[in-house]
This record gives sequence, structure tokens and C-alpha cells, in this order.
Amino acid sequence: MADRLVGEGPRQGVTNAHRSHAEALDAADPLAEHRAAFVFTDEAIYLDGNSLGRLPKATADRLTSAIRNEWGGGLVRSWPRWIGLPTDVGDRLGRAFLGAAPGQVIVCDSTTVNLYKLGAAALARQCGPVVVDASEFPTDRYVFEGLAASAGVEVRSADDETALDGASLVVRSLVDYRTAQLRDLEAETARIHEAGALVLWDLSHAVASVRIELDRAGADMAVGCTYKHLSAGPGAPAFIYIREDLQPQLRQPIWGWFGQRDQFAMGPEYDPEPGIAQMMTGTPDVLGLLALRTSIDVLGLAGIDALHAKAVALGDLAIFLADVWLAPLGFVLGSPRSGAFRGSHVALRHRDALRMCKALVAEGVVPDFRGPDMVRIGFGAASTRFVDVWDGLNRLRRIAEDGTYRNFDDLPGRVT
Amino acid sequence: MADRLVGEGPRQGVTNAHRSHAEALDAADPLAEHRAAFVFTDEAIYLDGNSLGRLPKATADRLTSAIRNEWGGGLVRSWPRWIGLPTDVGDRLGRAFLGAAPGQVIVCDSTTVNLYKLGAAALARQCGPVVVDASEFPTDRYVFEGLAASAGVEVRSADDETALDGASLVVRSLVDYRTAQLRDLEAETARIHEAGALVLWDLSHAVASVRIELDRAGADMAVGCTYKHLSAGPGAPAFIYIREDLQPQLRQPIWGWFGQRDQFAMGPEYDPEPGIAQMMTGTPDVLGLLALRTSIDVLGLAGIDALHAKAVALGDLAIFLADVWLAPLGFVLGSPRSGAFRGSHVALRHRDALRMCKALVAEGVVPDFRGPDMVRIGFGAASTRFVDVWDGLNRLRRIAEDGTYRNFDDLPGRVT
Repeated sequence: MADRLVGEGPRQGVTNAHRSHAEALDAADPLAEHRAAFVFTDEAIYLDGNSLGRLPKATADRLTSAIRNEWGGGLVRSWPRWIGLPTDVGDRLGRAFLGAAPGQVIVCDSTTVNLYKLGAAALARQCGPVVVDASEFPTDRYVFEGLAASAGVEVRSADDETALDGASLVVRSLVDYRTAQLRDLEAETARIHEAGALVLWDLSHAVASVRIELDRAGADMAVGCTYKHLSAGPGAPAFIYIREDLQPQLRQPIWGWFGQRDQFAMGPEYDPEPGIAQMMTGTPDVLGLLALRTSIDVLGLAGIDALHAKAVALGDLAIFLADVWLAPLGFVLGSPRSGAFRGSHVALRHRDALRMCKALVAEGVVPDFRGPDMVRIGFGAASTRFVDVWDGLNRLRRIAEDGTYRNFDDLPGRVT
Repeated sequence: MADRLVGEGPRQGVTNAHRSHAEALDAADPLAEHRAAFVFTDEAIYLDGNSLGRLPKATADRLTSAIRNEWGGGLVRSWPRWIGLPTDVGDRLGRAFLGAAPGQVIVCDSTTVNLYKLGAAALARQCGPVVVDASEFPTDRYVFEGLAASAGVEVRSADDETALDGASLVVRSLVDYRTAQLRDLEAETARIHEAGALVLWDLSHAVASVRIELDRAGADMAVGCTYKHLSAGPGAPAFIYIREDLQPQLRQPIWGWFGQRDQFAMGPEYDPEPGIAQMMTGTPDVLGLLALRTSIDVLGLAGIDALHAKAVALGDLAIFLADVWLAPLGFVLGSPRSGAFRGSHVALRHRDALRMCKALVAEGVVPDFRGPDMVRIGFGAASTRFVDVWDGLNRLRRIAEDGTYRNFDDLPGRVT
């Protein structure tokens, strides 16, 4: 592929904008072999791993086998092997990616429903203002807008200097879905605790891409989805973490038969499980749980430290190339420049971002668009190569330079 | 297989207890050919279709293809074809199996979460006592125990003669999960409406096995699971029905981004979809939705009238055989004798039911146990043969006669 050398010079460890440099980074990449663990069916350059993670080959095999043998063959006789999945997969997830000791993580429902359950439980324990930043992911804002209205408490934005005064709960994303800003889990948890509030971390854009140590940070609660960096598939179930000593103080509002102690006694009154299992509601999504268990194994082989380091390195390359190629074309970096404060994606702002994204898709590059002006470039550290970043941004440069993007409309809607 | 002629005589259209009679019923069964649409991997006699429905071959193929091509290949580019599934599959389900015009059914979350959303919405509209019978399925009782406690209203059992006085909501299963009693959807809805209450029907044990006409009955709300007679797989998403003119009066409590109007504008405040889509919460379970869409097609080819008629006929045979073989051995019928008042399973009560069930499983027959004393024999009308009922009950007779069941313990737990 022809390329044009636009800029050179040491910046963030990236030394030049020649494709050979990206190739050299791939050659030295300790995770390079892990790419073979994933399914690729076309030549598209996938830079949206933070929206829907790539399918591991082992997951495709595991699901096909589970569908035919466990559902099709075993039928109801397979429930003994399925019934423990929510806590078993939760413990595995906690160990591999959350820094959580067993008994504190469970996989169930969606992130939205889990936010609701934890939020309602926290407000029932201590009813006071809730801090949810105006820049938070929409579902976090909406869930707490509803819960706060119902409880008659105020929702405050985090940038209000007095936000923490008298607050009962702070809801915060560890990695911002737009900017990729990585917050300091330990320091922010401590600051929130000093103010007398509980913290509920949304790890959706962070889990399996940055190192997370919930136990060490003393975090109270967390939720997250599993279909992004965890690669558990579209709509796979989400997770909940509750610090062990806080569990007895929280009672969630959706009293379902899967949260019931001695479930199949089907007793007359609701008597919830004593531990994290009380957060369950209805029948769990078995296929989603099996997919998640498999992808935890696959990504666990890579290891979170290697995944995190590579995510930073991929972002550093993207930022270097954006500086030398895209800044002159009107793009502005929308993410922290330092990898220490950045998750596994990079936001590039441009007033024609929507058209740029549509033009990229037409060129075989899959980014994400976040309104009003962000091209979001996301990495699956176990499957994205440095040359993918190079090729993707090179095409964006060409599209921006030759004006191809002007052939696309800027009508709202998904770009893919 | 050797058999012993235990009784003869016309009863409920079943004329004798010889296996040849069951064979003749199969030979005349208009649904016989539909059995080939399902996966069979062993010789087990599966009489638990009301717990987990059999896997359609087309579903196995559809899921395998969706996993490899739509997730693995298309990745986030597949969302445009997935995003409409909850309402599209809901409309298909409404047309094929609920007697519901489009725009009133949506597929999302679990039955438990859906009961919670509808219950909270109904109590927010009109706060008063809730009627949930003490014999109701556990999750229905637990959800409303929690909601009623939170709203400060009473929960009444339906057998209380004054239960309806001043009640705001009645929650009722159309087919009882233990006895298979089929209630009169239209008459009970009218009776509840006369008392000034709303009705929320739980169709979990009824859908795709008995004819349901929600619109004609003027039903207010309904929920149901899809992993029983609908064969959508373990933990597949559940459904919600809300009568069109009631929709604007209900606002559910879990305000999530998938219930938001113009979702990807990610606007500052929650502004729910105007119709049934406001009942959504988080990211839908795509694989479960695709499985359900496929099984609706498969079962829709059989048609609900034929499925319902065959479920009744299978139950009639089971009851006839129970009368002549099992009643003398201490079994008591725990279901309505008339097919007009019975869903697609039959309960046989015996004080050693748990041991009987364990012995049946060891003999290659899969029933279900419901405490304290029920052997539950469930039919998947599109895949269960009359000889399966005959063979299954014949083995139960042998187990009961020769005392084999005494070799099994009666410790609680799943029998499979």
C-alpha cells in the first residue's frame, strides 16, 4: 500500500509515521499470536471493538456445541450444569479482570437493569442526592433520573463543585464512553468515601481493556456489559459487583425466583439468597453465560496487563498519526494524550465526523460515531494490529484530504 | 415392547390402553411430520417440554449462522438488522400465538423483570391491593410481594371471596404451572374489569400450547417466557403485551437507553418511546431473539389450533392411562379431567412422586417434579408422540409396580 510520510519524530514512544513502523510494532507484539484465536471473515479494518467485541473461535465452537448437545440433546437434564453459571462465571470474571475475590460478582440481566437494582438498593439504604455526570453514558443518566424522581432526591452533575456534599451515591464510568478518559479508581473511590457516599462504577468501557482492582480500591459496587472488550456477543448478560461486607446492607427491588434461597422449594415468601446471588431475578441467559465463560478463558490467556499495555500502545500510535496526518486537516484529539489516563479507544473530533465515519465504512474501515463530532476508534487489544490502526487512519486521512466524505449525507442514524 | 392390557372402554375419546392405540393416534396425527423439524440426539422419552422446549433444527442452523456470520463477520455492522428484533419478533409472536395486533408485544428481559416493570407501572397508575393467588408461580408471588411492600399495598390471594373488592391489579397465570388448569381468559378478564381492576396475565405455561386471544378478551397486560412451548432456548428473552389504548397510561420504572426515543441522539433527559418500545431497558439478547423468531416460524407452520388440539389429545391419553394403570397404584390426577380446562401438561400426584421422578429419569424418561407430590408430564405438541406418552407412563407403571422407585432417595433438588 502506498503511503506518504507526513511527519516524524519521537512522541509517546512512536517514532515515525511510516507503515513499516506499525509493522515493526506488530512484529514485536507479545499478543500477536492471540489474533488467531478470533474469527475473521473479511478484509474490513475493525476499529469498533469497544462497541461489539470480536468473536473468539472457541466461543463459536462452544456455542454450537452447547446448542446441539446441551440444549438439543440434554434438554432440561442440562440444568444442573447451567444453574451455577451466574456465580461461577462471575467469580472467573472477578479473578481475571476485576480484581475481585470470589462471592462478589454475578452475571445476570443487562447493565441497565443492574444499574437499576443497585441504585434502588443503595437509595433504600441511604436516601440522598445522587451524582451522575451530565457526560455519563445515557442509560446511567436515565436510570438514575427515574430512580431519583421516584425517591424524591436530586441528581447532581459531577462537575458541580459541591456535588458530593451530602450525596448518598456517585455513579461513574471508569472509562468514559466518548473521550476514553480513564479515571483513578482508587483515588476517586477514596474521595467519594470521604464525603460519606457510596460509589457505583460502570465498567462497561473498561473491563478487559484496563487493569481493574475493585477489592484493592475498596469500591462499593460496579456494573458492566460483556459484549464490548469481553467479546461475549450482542446482548450477552451484564455483571454486578458488590463488596462483600456491603452485601448484607443492600436489598434489591426485583424479587425473583432466581434470587430466592432454596429456589426449587418454591416457598411461600421471598427469602433472598444471602450473598451476591440475591441480585439475580429471572432465568439466566445460558448461551450468553457460556459465551462469556469461554471469552474470559480466551482473553485471560492474553492477560489483562498485556491487553492494557497494548491498548495504550495502539492508542499512542493512533494519536501520533492523528497529530501528523489529521490535525492539519481539522481534526482535534478528543481523548487524553497520556496512555495513563486513557482506555482502549481514541476520539477524534471533526465537524464532519458523521460524514467521515460513513465514508470510512464505505472504504472498509469500521469506526464508531458519537455525536455531535466524534470519530471513535476502538481497539480490541487481543485482535487489533498496529497496521490496522495505521491503515484505518491512513484511509481517514485520504477521505479527509480528497473530500470523499462530502459524498455522504450527515443525516443522523447508525453509521454501520 | 411387551405391554399388558390393563383397562378398556371409551373415555375422553381414548378407547383402550393397548400400545397399538397410541400408534394409531400417531398414524392419524396431522402434526406427525412436524417432529422431523426438531433435534433428537438420544432415545430418551422427553415429557418436560413445558420446562424447556425442544430445539428446532432450523434454530440450531440459524444460531450457528448468526454467530459466525452476523456476529463474527458483520460485527457492529449487523446492528441495523438486529435493532428492530424486539418489536418485529413481538409482532410475529402476537400474530401467531397471542391474538394480538401489531404494536402491542415486545420481546425483552426475563419474565420476572417484565412482571416487575408492568406491576410497578400499574401501581403507579392506580395504587391499591394486588391479587396474586397463593398457588401462583413463585416469581409472580415474589415480585408482587416486593412491589406491594414498596407501595404499601396489600397482596390478596385469589381464593379470598372479597379479593377483588377495591383491587387495582390481578396477576394470574392462564395455565397453572402445577395443575395445568386453563382459565377462561375472556370471562376472567371481564370479571376483573367489572371489579375495576386491571389484569396481568402470565402466559408462560400457555403460549404456543393453547389458543390465546388477548385482543378479543380485552386483556390489559401479559407476560410470558419463551423457553417452554416456544422453544427459544434456555434463558431466551421473555415478552410483554400491553393493550394499545392502555400504553399511554403506563410508565415503567427502569428508564434505559433502549426505551429512549431517538436512542442514538443520546439526549440529556429520558424521553421514552411512545408505544410498546418504552418497555425496553438495555441491550437486547440478539441470539435469543433470533432463536425465538425461528421457532415462531417453525411452530407457526403447525399452527396454534393443531398444537392445542394435540396437546389436549396427548393429555387425554395420559389421563386415560393414569386411570387404568396408575390410579390402582396410589396415583391421583392433579389436573382437570376435561381438555377444555387443561393446558399442555398433566400432573399425577403420589406421595413418592420425587422418588418416582428420579426412577423415571434412570429409566430414560424425563418428567418434571413439583413438590410436594407431583409428577408433571408435559407435552411439546409438535414433537411429542402418543407412543411417547404411552411408553413413559408404562415405565412409570412398572416402576410403581415393582417398587424400583424405592431405590432412590427423596432428598430435595432437581430430579434431572
